Amino acid sequence: MENEKLQQLKNLLGEVWDISMAAAVLGWDQETYMPPGGSKARGIQLSTLSRIAHTKFTSPKIGELLSELEPEAANWDPDSDEARLVKVTRRDYDKATKVPSDFVAEMTRVASEAQVAWREAKEKSDFSKFEPYLARIVELRRQYADFFAPYEHVYDPLLDDFEPGLKTADVQRIFEALRPQQVALIKAIAEKPQVDDSFLHQPYDEKKQWDFGVEVITKFGFDWKRGRQDKSAHPFTTSFSVNDVRITTRIVPDFLGTGLFGTMHECGHALYEQRVDPALERTPLGHGASLAIHESQSRLWENLVGRSRPFWEHFYPRLQEYFPAQLGNVDLETFYKGINKVEPSLIRTEADEATYNLHIMLRLELEIALMEGSVEVKDLPEVWNEKMREYLGVTPPDDAHGVLQDIHWSMGALGYFSTYALGNLISAQWWERMHEDIPNLDEQIRAGNFADLLGWLREHIHRHGAKFEPQELVKRVTGSGIDPAPYMRYLKTKYGEIYNL
Amino acid sequence: MENEKLQQLKNLLGEVWDISMAAAVLGWDQETYMPPGGSKARGIQLSTLSRIAHTKFTSPKIGELLSELEPEAANWDPDSDEARLVKVTRRDYDKATKVPSDFVAEMTRVASEAQVAWREAKEKSDFSKFEPYLARIVELRRQYADFFAPYEHVYDPLLDDFEPGLKTADVQRIFEALRPQQVALIKAIAEKPQVDDSFLHQPYDEKKQWDFGVEVITKFGFDWKRGRQDKSAHPFTTSFSVNDVRITTRIVPDFLGTGLFGTMHECGHALYEQRVDPALERTPLGHGASLAIHESQSRLWENLVGRSRPFWEHFYPRLQEYFPAQLGNVDLETFYKGINKVEPSLIRTEADEATYNLHIMLRLELEIALMEGSVEVKDLPEVWNEKMREYLGVTPPDDAHGVLQDIHWSMGALGYFSTYALGNLISAQWWERMHEDIPNLDEQIRAGNFADLLGWLREHIHRHGAKFEPQELVKRVTGSGIDPAPYMRYLKTKYGEIYNL
Repeated sequence: MENEKLQQLKNLLGEVWDISMAAAVLGWDQETYMPPGGSKARGIQLSTLSRIAHTKFTSPKIGELLSELEPEAANWDPDSDEARLVKVTRRDYDKATKVPSDFVAEMTRVASEAQVAWREAKEKSDFSKFEPYLARIVELRRQYADFFAPYEHVYDPLLDDFEPGLKTADVQRIFEALRPQQVALIKAIAEKPQVDDSFLHQPYDEKKQWDFGVEVITKFGFDWKRGRQDKSAHPFTTSFSVNDVRITTRIVPDFLGTGLFGTMHECGHALYEQRVDPALERTPLGHGASLAIHESQSRLWENLVGRSRPFWEHFYPRLQEYFPAQLGNVDLETFYKGINKVEPSLIRTEADEATYNLHIMLRLELEIALMEGSVEVKDLPEVWNEKMREYLGVTPPDDAHGVLQDIHWSMGALGYFSTYALGNLISAQWWERMHEDIPNLDEQIRAGNFADLLGWLREHIHRHGAKFEPQELVKRVTGSGIDPAPYMRYLKTKYGEIYNL
Repeated sequence: MENEKLQQLKNLLGEVWDISMAAAVLGWDQETYMPPGGSKARGIQLSTLSRIAHTKFTSPKIGELLSELEPEAANWDPDSDEARLVKVTRRDYDKATKVPSDFVAEMTRVASEAQVAWREAKEKSDFSKFEPYLARIVELRRQYADFFAPYEHVYDPLLDDFEPGLKTADVQRIFEALRPQQVALIKAIAEKPQVDDSFLHQPYDEKKQWDFGVEVITKFGFDWKRGRQDKSAHPFTTSFSVNDVRITTRIVPDFLGTGLFGTMHECGHALYEQRVDPALERTPLGHGASLAIHESQSRLWENLVGRSRPFWEHFYPRLQEYFPAQLGNVDLETFYKGINKVEPSLIRTEADEATYNLHIMLRLELEIALMEGSVEVKDLPEVWNEKMREYLGVTPPDDAHGVLQDIHWSMGALGYFSTYALGNLISAQWWERMHEDIPNLDEQIRAGNFADLLGWLREHIHRHGAKFEPQELVKRVTGSGIDPAPYMRYLKTKYGEIYNL
């Protein structure tokens, strides 16, 4: 099936890929090792690379090759790498060419200024300092959406950048079904005796935290010959090829949770990228399918595995060996309940599994309202606080702990947040399906054996890279679309048992 | 003087610069942190970046802008940044456009294969495994020279890539004057009682070696906000902007010399790059003037400062505090003589100041002979060994310790070696001149004060970046061309005193 035009297309896409990977290396360095003096030049270098990549990807030659290949591709196996490559490249090409490069440059410039303003606003807990920048960003995001008119919903083009093929109406329908159940669950938990997690909040040696995390993710299957772990202020995963996938972690000296679960979370992303079929490299198919599918991996390892009883039945004695003074007198049951404590709180990134999605729903509703114009930027802090009270029963004491907490909007990334919650839902869909295919999975985890689990993920998800759009992938593997039911079943079973509901 | 065409030229050159800096980050990562799995993709990424940078730098638009600017520039101050920018860009542009990109690709491909072959040949100490690759490289280097015909000497175009403006005849004349004097000095030393350096060869804690090195180069003036140090198998300096200059070092657990002098050496390179005028950034002027000028900096800090008695009068008590068990009973005089021990040896990178240049002369002569065709590749090991006996009185036991020891030829970098020796010579020229300008320089060094020294280098050398070609720069600062006399005076004084000549 390989032919000359396809090869030409791959060569051009490979060049774009290489530039993007170079930019990823620069980004990784920026967050890990770059001295402070390097930041200004680094910003310029990254902007040059992204401009070159965009120019090359939107070159008419790629459009011509696609048009020439499409009639041929109609006769190819529609699930073949080649047919999917033509299809996905066409989708991305059409999107990229609809956006003028002047607009891209303006968006980049505004986002860069907005991030500076956001940092200052957050530091001073003063939304007014960020407000004009956010207003400009919302304006630009509306302009962006209009490049894709007509659309069903003005928010659709934004969502599509992160979840190809998914519509705003889909997400709203899913969240509508989910919200009342999560709210009810939290209320039920609040009426029960609360669990104690104070033992997590004491001094934990940073080196030992690091070493235990390494031990865990090595067992998970992280391949250190094709990856590494470093420290950074905000943990992330990045990859420069399927054979060079890097994670970062943040260790907090007086709280065990951040480093421990953060490391497992990033490892989940990395296991995905390390196992994409190498044949897909240097093409738009050579990485994870979408942010939600990615998050379904990180959340699966962090929560469904890493906060499960079988996991700790295996690892807890080992953790006690690392920290005898802190955990020697804490029994497994107390520990297990402690790491699964449910408590409505102000900050999304610190939220537990039962409350997390509500933080996301709030953000999605506000983003949609901003795009529709039904909420104005200046009213955002007030609306935020109202919704926090409504969904979680807590009130932010100031904007830093409310509307200013996340960096995403300052980066122009409206459309991003829902992928976090969708990832949670999808992780539970994999989990149910996986237990059908591997009946003794819990026993394997209890024995510290993750080979079948990882093999299943590789076979059904990882190796396909971005060949299938998120909804299609979920359907192929589970037989249904994105569905909140498995996640609710999971939460109800888990917390029902912990809180005696 | 700033005008629109000049700004257009700067924008295009800035883009090329950014790509080169991105490639430098990828190169740094490759040698410091990259997991082994990453190497194949990294090679492809680097080759893509270098191809894009070459294509962009040789674009006709740059040629047009130069042609339009040159008549104007004739009226500008010839030493202004702008006039020099046009001049240097023209020089580099004419060179770059003379070489077809097919040739560049072929050279890159052959060099990549040759390095693999060289590694294997060196490991097995079998020159025959490398011979066909080197023969092909010599052939390609002759072709390369022919792109620049007519030339005075076939070796000139090669040398010019590393030392703009310098001719083979210049280097030969300099080396001819130097060789008999260095040979005579070594003979005289050999007839005297030898010094003891056995105390350098014992276990030295790696962390303490690292820390002492950091203490020294911090005093030198290395700016940690605009740079960093990491470990690598082969120490090097690289920069991604004047505000992000990085060095690497290699610490050997049972020999003090490697880490200590290697760190000072790389710091010398870094102090140069950290002090180039920021106004020259993102242009071909925004880095060091040439390899020889660079080496004049690294060697000055490593040898003229770092192996001097005043330096150790200040730092030796501190070093003894770091290593009381190893050096507590070694007095300053013994230490000073030990680190300046002269001993003809087989390996260039381990050679002392008195013998080092002879290793270089041997290589230059062989490179010229290969290019002229007066020595054939197959006869190289034999000719190498003959010259080693003649110049240094030692005979390599095998090719790994002889003709196969350096990576340079396998990289296609014929023309490179002489810059090491020229750097030594030039460092002594700066040194003499500097002592005239700063009469109490030795006292300052004895007090651990390097501010005037660094200030002098910045004023006369660093800030100019690549505005002046190496010979012009030497002339501007010292009043004479590249001259071996100061270096010989330095060697004779130093070793005359150490060895009672």
